[in-house]
Amino acid sequence: MSSSPHNFPVIPSASARAAKSLGGSGHRASPKGLQTRSHIIDTALQLATHNGLESLSIGGLAEATSMSKSGVFAHFGSREELQICVIREYHQRFEQEVFFPALQGERGLPRLRALFDNWMKRTSIELDSGCIYISGAIEFHDSIGPVRDALVESIGIWHAAMRRTIEQCKELGQLMADADSSQILTEVHALILVLHYEARFMRSAGAMQRALTGFENILLRYSAQLALAGPAGKSRKTAQELPQ
Amino acid sequence: MSSSPHNFPVIPSASARAAKSLGGSGHRASPKGLQTRSHIIDTALQLATHNGLESLSIGGLAEATSMSKSGVFAHFGSREELQICVIREYHQRFEQEVFFPALQGERGLPRLRALFDNWMKRTSIELDSGCIYISGAIEFHDSIGPVRDALVESIGIWHAAMRRTIEQCKELGQLMADADSSQILTEVHALILVLHYEARFMRSAGAMQRALTGFENILLRYSAQLALAGPAGKSRKTAQELPQ
Repeated sequence: MSSSPHNFPVIPSASARAAKSLGGSGHRASPKGLQTRSHIIDTALQLATHNGLESLSIGGLAEATSMSKSGVFAHFGSREELQICVIREYHQRFEQEVFFPALQGERGLPRLRALFDNWMKRTSIELDSGCIYISGAIEFHDSIGPVRDALVESIGIWHAAMRRTIEQCKELGQLMADADSSQILTEVHALILVLHYEARFMRSAGAMQRALTGFENILLRYSAQLALAGPAGKSRKTAQELPQ
Repeated sequence: MSSSPHNFPVIPSASARAAKSLGGSGHRASPKGLQTRSHIIDTALQLATHNGLESLSIGGLAEATSMSKSGVFAHFGSREELQICVIREYHQRFEQEVFFPALQGERGLPRLRALFDNWMKRTSIELDSGCIYISGAIEFHDSIGPVRDALVESIGIWHAAMRRTIEQCKELGQLMADADSSQILTEVHALILVLHYEARFMRSAGAMQRALTGFENILLRYSAQLALAGPAGKSRKTAQELPQ
């Protein structure tokens, strides 16, 4: 795994991997070969975001791209390799749309808000297709193997980036210094999952606004400003003090 | 839809429906017929919680129950009807494990906590199989038809029951009178989704504890006690007052 200029570990792109080896043959790929491969991955990504990674097959891809099965096979070698390439391509696009634009913002809270906003926007855009980080988690929950590993790795990288931004907020004195970053990350991720569930499946109105309110509630809960606000801070109750 | 003694609207059980009509034929089912039907639904539920509702087929069920295809078909008439029966059976079990035991507890916060605890426990038990309310939401997000409708109805009933319990907490002066019940429900549901995701797919340690902490954070945020706690209450900031 290499590093981006922003210290965000990046999974090598499909084309970079293809340039290194094509279909595991060890030969350098021609520009035309790379282009074809890229076209297959594009098509596969579209199919996967609509119907899941498990819906992908070499045969189905051959049909969708008007290629021969052996032609598709030559580019990937196996269905698993094809699925992994799709995950990597998805990861790249997720970075481009969610992560990199947020890095333009100020460190700390503005960046954390931008990450969440971009993530929400992507989740809303995906209402017409789907998020393979969510559908893949259902498809591969009880499997073992390289496809699940690639998904977990990709989500893990994204989580680590979010966690680092939360840590920055703590260092900058914006969130409580003793706040548990993993706890905050979990609560934020929960809101994305419920946004996806409510907007996409339940088709309930106001899902986006509820996710946004939930996010601001989390920031409020862990706000360093509130913790230091004298009487308010002192009388801040812990969960254990609430009536049971 | 009928009502339970606890004013929890209940979807008619598979057996009650079967007693009324079997396979849409209008004939009353024999005890043996009901038993067979119940056995098929049990098997189908197991398959669906492992592999999804979409994995169900009359043929697959015939094989799993050592029956003929026409034998299974006679009990349901269609794959859709079979899927709907499985959703209804799942709903019944969900009520039995999550909802009814919580009704034994005191009204208000103790009952809300019990609902969440039972829901969490069920989500953890299901780590070996799966929750069709979560996997079904992925499978049927962009479909229309009676199977999706049955799923949405079932989840809607469960949400309404949770919402009523939240309303009780407000009436009892435990949660802020002006708190938005749908907002609280969304935030609580989010934690179940993320627990399922982290524990089941990411297999990350401490997922249950983070969900529990998240839940107590929600209660804390909407606690009427804090809102009325004088200086703390007065200096309670809204999200808009936090630094942007």
